[in-house]
Amino acid sequence: MDAAIEVLAREGARGLTFRSVDVEAAVPPGTASNYFASRDDLLTRAGSRVYERLQPDDATMARHRTSAPDRHTYVVLMRELIARIGAFRTGHLALLELRLEATRRPELRAVLTGRVRADIDANANVAYHLASGLPGDATAVRLLYLAFNWIVVEQLTLPDVFSEAERDALVAAAVERIVTP
Amino acid sequence: MDAAIEVLAREGARGLTFRSVDVEAAVPPGTASNYFASRDDLLTRAGSRVYERLQPDDATMARHRTSAPDRHTYVVLMRELIARIGAFRTGHLALLELRLEATRRPELRAVLTGRVRADIDANANVAYHLASGLPGDATAVRLLYLAFNWIVVEQLTLPDVFSEAERDALVAAAVERIVTP
Repeated sequence: MDAAIEVLAREGARGLTFRSVDVEAAVPPGTASNYFASRDDLLTRAGSRVYERLQPDDATMARHRTSAPDRHTYVVLMRELIARIGAFRTGHLALLELRLEATRRPELRAVLTGRVRADIDANANVAYHLASGLPGDATAVRLLYLAFNWIVVEQLTLPDVFSEAERDALVAAAVERIVTP
Repeated sequence: MDAAIEVLAREGARGLTFRSVDVEAAVPPGTASNYFASRDDLLTRAGSRVYERLQPDDATMARHRTSAPDRHTYVVLMRELIARIGAFRTGHLALLELRLEATRRPELRAVLTGRVRADIDANANVAYHLASGLPGDATAVRLLYLAFNWIVVEQLTLPDVFSEAERDALVAAAVERIVTP
């Protein structure tokens, strides 16, 4: 699955074949076709694997649960999230390739839709938890999700549109305005 | 160029060849290779063509210039923008394919970066104009750009993540919170 992520990021969904995964993983020809039932299976499991690798670890989660519920914490959380994404560039490029491939494959679209909704709901739960006393309502969580997803796309695909300082300022401004008292 | 947009949206950047453009445009084999100097040329001009087709017409621009400078106008503008994008689905899918291809092609990346920055600046100008009296500052324009770009990605690639009513509510909430008094 990790090899499939690298192939997706580098060559796009159309470049992803059992054979290309075998080569990337440096395993004997025919190995990938033994582990994945179909190309749809390969695509959807590569997508799940990206989400799995993007989960914060238990120590990070514990730290978040004990952070002060204020806007500053939000900004820190969001910058960490964006840094985690930047550190797994191929994973996010693979997800974008999968989204585009989903316009052509209903089964992949259904799997990704379920995954994204679960992710938004999980974020909402974290925010609600953090938000004892903080106005981190569901609308704020969704608006931040929208804005930050595009910051990530911009950073991954056209990194010179915004400088790093501009991105940092946009993250802070987004929290300042969207997470209203 | 229009044929190239359709091929990009349907088959991705890797499916875009002179030959596939000839077939899509129903012109004799060899025609595309007479009109485009290289594959980079074909990719970048297809991208420019999408932006050209997304421009609002003169009547729409004139109407915007005479609209009342309030938040309601912003919401109307943004819903129109999103509708214009939905009406040119293949153009936006083609732009996403081009962004991903730009991670592999520095020349394409440079062209797209210039184009996107110009677009953000143009939006800022429109907003400044509208904003005589309105707090449509450059930060607001950028934050709306981020949020709306991702709404469009979601709508085009995983249309069931948010319902149409949810998308409408998110547009209104984004303006309400981001365009602060």
